[in-house]
Amino acid sequence: MSQSTPDTTQDGYRIEHDTMGEVRVPASALYRAQTQRAVENFPISGQGLEPAHIHALAQVKKAAARANRELGVLGADIAGAIIAAADEVVAGKHDDQFPVDTYQTGSGTSSNMNMNEVLATLASGGELDVHPNDHVNCSQSSNDVFPTSVHVAVTAGVVETLLPALAHLAEALETKAEAWKAVVKSGRTHLMDATPVTLGQEFGGYAAAIRYGIERVEAALPRTAEVPQGGTAVGTGINTPAGFPQKVIANLAEQTGLPLTEARNHFEAQSARDGLVEMSGALRTIAVSVTKICNDLRWMGSGPNTGLGEIAIPDLQPGSSIMPGKVNPVIPEAVLMVCAKIVGNDAAVAWGGAQGSFELNVQIPLMGTSLLESIRLLANASVALADKTVDGLVANEEKARFYAEASPSIVTPLNSLIGYESAAKIAKHAVAERISVREAVLALGFVERGELTEQQLDSALDVLSMTAPKA
Amino acid sequence: MSQSTPDTTQDGYRIEHDTMGEVRVPASALYRAQTQRAVENFPISGQGLEPAHIHALAQVKKAAARANRELGVLGADIAGAIIAAADEVVAGKHDDQFPVDTYQTGSGTSSNMNMNEVLATLASGGELDVHPNDHVNCSQSSNDVFPTSVHVAVTAGVVETLLPALAHLAEALETKAEAWKAVVKSGRTHLMDATPVTLGQEFGGYAAAIRYGIERVEAALPRTAEVPQGGTAVGTGINTPAGFPQKVIANLAEQTGLPLTEARNHFEAQSARDGLVEMSGALRTIAVSVTKICNDLRWMGSGPNTGLGEIAIPDLQPGSSIMPGKVNPVIPEAVLMVCAKIVGNDAAVAWGGAQGSFELNVQIPLMGTSLLESIRLLANASVALADKTVDGLVANEEKARFYAEASPSIVTPLNSLIGYESAAKIAKHAVAERISVREAVLALGFVERGELTEQQLDSALDVLSMTAPKA
Amino acid sequence: MSQSTPDTTQDGYRIEHDTMGEVRVPASALYRAQTQRAVENFPISGQGLEPAHIHALAQVKKAAARANRELGVLGADIAGAIIAAADEVVAGKHDDQFPVDTYQTGSGTSSNMNMNEVLATLASGGELDVHPNDHVNCSQSSNDVFPTSVHVAVTAGVVETLLPALAHLAEALETKAEAWKAVVKSGRTHLMDATPVTLGQEFGGYAAAIRYGIERVEAALPRTAEVPQGGTAVGTGINTPAGFPQKVIANLAEQTGLPLTEARNHFEAQSARDGLVEMSGALRTIAVSVTKICNDLRWMGSGPNTGLGEIAIPDLQPGSSIMPGKVNPVIPEAVLMVCAKIVGNDAAVAWGGAQGSFELNVQIPLMGTSLLESIRLLANASVALADKTVDGLVANEEKARFYAEASPSIVTPLNSLIGYESAAKIAKHAVAERISVREAVLALGFVERGELTEQQLDSALDVLSMTAPKA
Amino acid sequence: MSQSTPDTTQDGYRIEHDTMGEVRVPASALYRAQTQRAVENFPISGQGLEPAHIHALAQVKKAAARANRELGVLGADIAGAIIAAADEVVAGKHDDQFPVDTYQTGSGTSSNMNMNEVLATLASGGELDVHPNDHVNCSQSSNDVFPTSVHVAVTAGVVETLLPALAHLAEALETKAEAWKAVVKSGRTHLMDATPVTLGQEFGGYAAAIRYGIERVEAALPRTAEVPQGGTAVGTGINTPAGFPQKVIANLAEQTGLPLTEARNHFEAQSARDGLVEMSGALRTIAVSVTKICNDLRWMGSGPNTGLGEIAIPDLQPGSSIMPGKVNPVIPEAVLMVCAKIVGNDAAVAWGGAQGSFELNVQIPLMGTSLLESIRLLANASVALADKTVDGLVANEEKARFYAEASPSIVTPLNSLIGYESAAKIAKHAVAERISVREAVLALGFVERGELTEQQLDSALDVLSMTAPKA
Repeated sequence: MSQSTPDTTQDGYRIEHDTMGEVRVPASALYRAQTQRAVENFPISGQGLEPAHIHALAQVKKAAARANRELGVLGADIAGAIIAAADEVVAGKHDDQFPVDTYQTGSGTSSNMNMNEVLATLASGGELDVHPNDHVNCSQSSNDVFPTSVHVAVTAGVVETLLPALAHLAEALETKAEAWKAVVKSGRTHLMDATPVTLGQEFGGYAAAIRYGIERVEAALPRTAEVPQGGTAVGTGINTPAGFPQKVIANLAEQTGLPLTEARNHFEAQSARDGLVEMSGALRTIAVSVTKICNDLRWMGSGPNTGLGEIAIPDLQPGSSIMPGKVNPVIPEAVLMVCAKIVGNDAAVAWGGAQGSFELNVQIPLMGTSLLESIRLLANASVALADKTVDGLVANEEKARFYAEASPSIVTPLNSLIGYESAAKIAKHAVAERISVREAVLALGFVERGELTEQQLDSALDVLSMTAPKA
Repeated sequence: MSQSTPDTTQDGYRIEHDTMGEVRVPASALYRAQTQRAVENFPISGQGLEPAHIHALAQVKKAAARANRELGVLGADIAGAIIAAADEVVAGKHDDQFPVDTYQTGSGTSSNMNMNEVLATLASGGELDVHPNDHVNCSQSSNDVFPTSVHVAVTAGVVETLLPALAHLAEALETKAEAWKAVVKSGRTHLMDATPVTLGQEFGGYAAAIRYGIERVEAALPRTAEVPQGGTAVGTGINTPAGFPQKVIANLAEQTGLPLTEARNHFEAQSARDGLVEMSGALRTIAVSVTKICNDLRWMGSGPNTGLGEIAIPDLQPGSSIMPGKVNPVIPEAVLMVCAKIVGNDAAVAWGGAQGSFELNVQIPLMGTSLLESIRLLANASVALADKTVDGLVANEEKARFYAEASPSIVTPLNSLIGYESAAKIAKHAVAERISVREAVLALGFVERGELTEQQLDSALDVLSMTAPKA
Repeated sequence: MSQSTPDTTQDGYRIEHDTMGEVRVPASALYRAQTQRAVENFPISGQGLEPAHIHALAQVKKAAARANRELGVLGADIAGAIIAAADEVVAGKHDDQFPVDTYQTGSGTSSNMNMNEVLATLASGGELDVHPNDHVNCSQSSNDVFPTSVHVAVTAGVVETLLPALAHLAEALETKAEAWKAVVKSGRTHLMDATPVTLGQEFGGYAAAIRYGIERVEAALPRTAEVPQGGTAVGTGINTPAGFPQKVIANLAEQTGLPLTEARNHFEAQSARDGLVEMSGALRTIAVSVTKICNDLRWMGSGPNTGLGEIAIPDLQPGSSIMPGKVNPVIPEAVLMVCAKIVGNDAAVAWGGAQGSFELNVQIPLMGTSLLESIRLLANASVALADKTVDGLVANEEKARFYAEASPSIVTPLNSLIGYESAAKIAKHAVAERISVREAVLALGFVERGELTEQQLDSALDVLSMTAPKA
Repeated sequence: MSQSTPDTTQDGYRIEHDTMGEVRVPASALYRAQTQRAVENFPISGQGLEPAHIHALAQVKKAAARANRELGVLGADIAGAIIAAADEVVAGKHDDQFPVDTYQTGSGTSSNMNMNEVLATLASGGELDVHPNDHVNCSQSSNDVFPTSVHVAVTAGVVETLLPALAHLAEALETKAEAWKAVVKSGRTHLMDATPVTLGQEFGGYAAAIRYGIERVEAALPRTAEVPQGGTAVGTGINTPAGFPQKVIANLAEQTGLPLTEARNHFEAQSARDGLVEMSGALRTIAVSVTKICNDLRWMGSGPNTGLGEIAIPDLQPGSSIMPGKVNPVIPEAVLMVCAKIVGNDAAVAWGGAQGSFELNVQIPLMGTSLLESIRLLANASVALADKTVDGLVANEEKARFYAEASPSIVTPLNSLIGYESAAKIAKHAVAERISVREAVLALGFVERGELTEQQLDSALDVLSMTAPKA
């Protein structure tokens, strides 16, 4: 008796079988024996694959069924039924039928079989008795299907969600850079007063960092978008018809609209998951960039009375359960925690990536779930940062200019007129006496002695002009 | 009009207010304005706090209400109502009322206010109008409550779940160590044939590693179990009555049965979360131990025909969607992925731990959720490894002994009889000629020349006796 | 002909041999064939073992020679010669005779043989022909000697250098905590103005963090101080006389004055290096603490005119090659880089620790060198931070008090008088109108309406009294 | 009196001064006051900058002197003298004049001043009195010079050393892939017997992984090769003449032959060091690849009698101090430790990269030294792995074929003939009865019953044909 017409017991379960024997499965489940075994074997985290990953896996099944039909390996009726079933899963109609834990067999075989079983059940009926292995998994192995599904999901996440989110954040920052291009403030290096910059220059730098982040992801994408499909069990393509990888990957690229390509070397493609490690490293670099930006924003907005107070960060919620009226930079904080998580996920991905042996890496579910989480978190965090913080920032232009003029480092242009050592004397004198640099120049007699003219001094100490090289 | 009797609109929402104004809240929600703001502000991960964390937070609220009553700060009616409400949350009856994302304000204020609001709603009614801040949060701040709740949840997770799970795994390993104390096999160093060991000695080593892991967690626990409660906003205890920290922590320890103590320094306790970093490091060390153990198990069980095949790992599910009859070490693989995740979470926790400034660390939700996940994963993985793998291991004693006798390193006891250099000649000869060490000794004339007697040779080459020092 | 009286060629080299054949060795070298092979095999980093590690290794050799003499395995003449030779190496007289790269065989066999050869050469002469393996390495294996030497060096580094350095730093911080116990300033949470603290309280918190760090190291020490000596090749103690581990470790403890103990399980002790991972984790936690402290110091000292300026950090050197008169917090920066390095070394140590297989971890030199570097860096950084920065800090008490009084969060004590929501109105009004909290209370009519008396207001707004709970 | 003609004291020291006063400097030193202050301020690691970094720094100084001359900011005599001095440093003639610790001020100002002072001393003499700041550092700041020098050194290390070394390793692997393209063996997935592959396919996969590594580095290079030179103090280019960045970077590219370009955004370029984080991530990914390859090599070479023994790894040195005749895979082990170190350095680089504030990252020396070490280690390790291990590998073709035929997974091609479930029965029967797959097919009656012909069976079970898809 086939797997698709199981005995149903009276207590809400039915009996399914696989090559190891019989298993009790919830009567209403679309999945079958192997899924149920996996549910029982892996009570570890309670966390399954990301839904986007399940949908990508169904896309692979659909692409394979199409290729099998095109190459005459599966008949049109069975292939068509599998494709229709896969479309339902892609559409998110059966997300609840994938109960297998992320912490399962390292190849993702349990999730692949989960998908094979669900599609076989959906596709079977009437005349058709669709088998999970012989039909749904035809010309495939978990060892090419599952990593392919991760790369498809990652590529989709990057192309469709992350890159637009980063661009959105960059635009928000660029808008501020333009708006504040003449808002002069004191630069700070080593946290100490430095020569002036404009707030616009700073935000231009932040925008550039995000733009570079986009380049980083794009630079990694070609290798991440290579998929192992077609290698089957060990990369040799055993049990595939000639031309299968090309067809299945063309189908997959067409279905998803993603820039997917066939692995240039199917042995590398199945024994290593380095493309995921690389992409994770790109996200980690962006997390580093964003950490710096959020910390700058928090410090610029610190106060209101005992901090720097150069900008005001939008008030989104009461900040304290005890200190009335307090408002905190809550979005930058949330984003900073996202960055920490991405750093952590990246460490897990690299650790998992190094654990492969011979023809297979067996930390794929962990790597996939961690990287997909990072992509999702970074995308959502970027949008939140743009919309809920950057867009609403208000500059305190008055304070910014006050700082610019208060920095003893505005003595710097005098180097070329009186030398570094004399300029240092002026700066130290100004700080010690709590007077302005201009006052210190005069107090130390540089004008009186004719080493500087008043006009030179006026020109040298104009803070806005210090924010660009000499014309 | 009070927060607890809000206007209800007709469309399934009601209007609540807080110090920033009005907010639309689902009509049936127990939470109020600040929770709703947080839900809207942080659409980042879709992942809230761990349920164990929410329950711990309710325990803190209960302990505080008790202390406030004992010290006369709250009346018995209000305190009693808060306590009863907290008991419901502790019991898991309202887990769905805590929708705030983990990636929120870094102090956890949103989750603290979520709890304050839910308890206020539950506690209000009839005569009582319980205020989230003035009553539920009385004598408290998010800055002491929230980190306290993390430490309570971590301590509970460690004491109640992780340590027993590790002990369970150690016992499973010790059972095998005892059973296999005379199963001799070849040792392997650098993966190369070495002098013999018993399989029992190896499993004894694994058990010891887990026992050390228990010690590591216990060594870190005193500092993790110190809680900042009583420091309120910045560690000074502002707005607490005299004696509050002692009372609240005594209550908390009594309620939970955990070895909780008051922070010895409330400024360290609120400005740093180093106790979490330390505990995470202990878990990371255990993950390192378990990684090594699982890899050994996988290699011992490799084959059945082209690997080492010293042990058989229980068959739990079909191993391959394409290779029929294949069975894989799926539990060790799942556990290895757990270890990778713990390494990643640890990196996130350390990163977050270093980001504090002045009176507060603002990565507490990330640190708490990550560490609590690691505790849960490691506990579940330890039990699964014990029950689904270690218990069912079967030794291939015949193959093990074959290996013991085949290792050219059994020449080692001859060092003391004929010197290292002569012994090396024998070992090399045996390998080159594919003969046994005994045969090589004879072939090279050591007995013939009288450098060794037959009896010395028999005694020296007994593989089981090589598994202990000379008597 | 023996290894100790080699042929000397005319070109500055002599010919040595080992079990693999002949090798040209520099004529003046104390080392022999195997060292020379290793020098040629590993041209990787140019970095050898830490000198402290070499000295520890010689201590192990001395302790073993003593034990071998005591147990009658080596004669008094040979043992005595080895001991004398080891003493010379311990004293640092032959550091240049250990040219083997850290990146060598993962067991450290090359360094062990380097030591065996150097000691054999030093100990040979006259009547004595001491053999590197048969005599110097007698009753030992690289697999117990080398990890033992790492644990001895780590224990020595921790006990003799790191813990005193941390205590020194804690004392420096405690001195400031005492001196500044009445210097009131604004607390900052989320970088935003909070209720007051004293500068002394902050420094007390820093000191406590360092004191906890000492506890962390001490908590890990018992396991780190367990040594595998006596297990020889694979943990079984093959080729050791009865009682050897006890004797050799007693000797080692006596020679070094360190709390060294015998591994409770010799199989764990040789197949895993978890004790190093754990200790590295302790250092990593301290690096997290110190990062937070140094960042606080840098921000407190930021300015002089556009930052917080609460303290002055000692001027140690001109800060900028272009900005005259600039002075930067250079020691905190150096220490922050040390912390980053410790985090990195810790990642390497954990990675290496997970790579063991069966009876041996083969990343010991990497783990040892990385951890010993971390110990040395953290000790030196702690002393520098204490002596060159903390000791010389000067508080700007006037500015600190100004901040305390400027913080709108000083409204907090009013919660218990007028409720959180009314207090929030006051704080917001003060910030919006740029007036003091006191002025805002009066402007909003709380006194006029009799909700507060002037006396209550004076008492509530005293900033120094806010730095402790109510009496 | 100028800095270049200092007072010389009688005790081997001379007195130098800077803007903070007088300093005693070794009489023979080329460096001056600020270097000496730094030597005294930073007794942390004893490790200075990498020599390659010092030479790159001198290249920047030369390029700047040329640009200053071209733009008329410095006279030909002074510029020429600086250029000649820089050439000497580039040539490695003064490496001992750079004693400043890596753990110094986070901007590298001390190393920049060290270079300014050495060049000033070398360039001064006769008529010329060259000033470290006013002349050597003219139009520059540590804040652009020092990070530029890191990026130049990293780009040089990558282009000149690492990429050729990786290509060399890839070629060595490709040579084996070609030589062994028909050496059939058992594939292994989950460490368990899988369908056959050729040894050549495996090595082709390794080569591909390294080739991908080259692509990864090349993909990151454009951003790493962007340099901040010209931004001076804070990115604004204050105190530079018009056209300076273009000239100095053109000079630098011409001098070094490297593909250096000007930072597209000078504010990003000075406030973040993300280009280094990205490049470090690329190296980390390669370390992951190489870890997997080295572990495979070690396992293939495991034995000789109790391991897999598919290949023989060249014997380079005696493997054990106690087990005579033992030989170990020492180069793969050394390389694995290098990979661990790269992972650790990468963690440090990312940590440091996230620590920037406003206009400057202050962990540059740590980031530079760590990344440069990683580049050097990976390059040396790649060459050693190619030359000392891969080139000398010998396949055990007989054993490899034996394994191929022994794997029960060779049943896989039968799926398409008799279905997955029947094939599973055969595989299980073969393993249980310790018979071949062919024998199991016959024993279970598949031929007898006419489900398979003998010819189909012969064709299906040909192991070499299983290493490619069906024609």
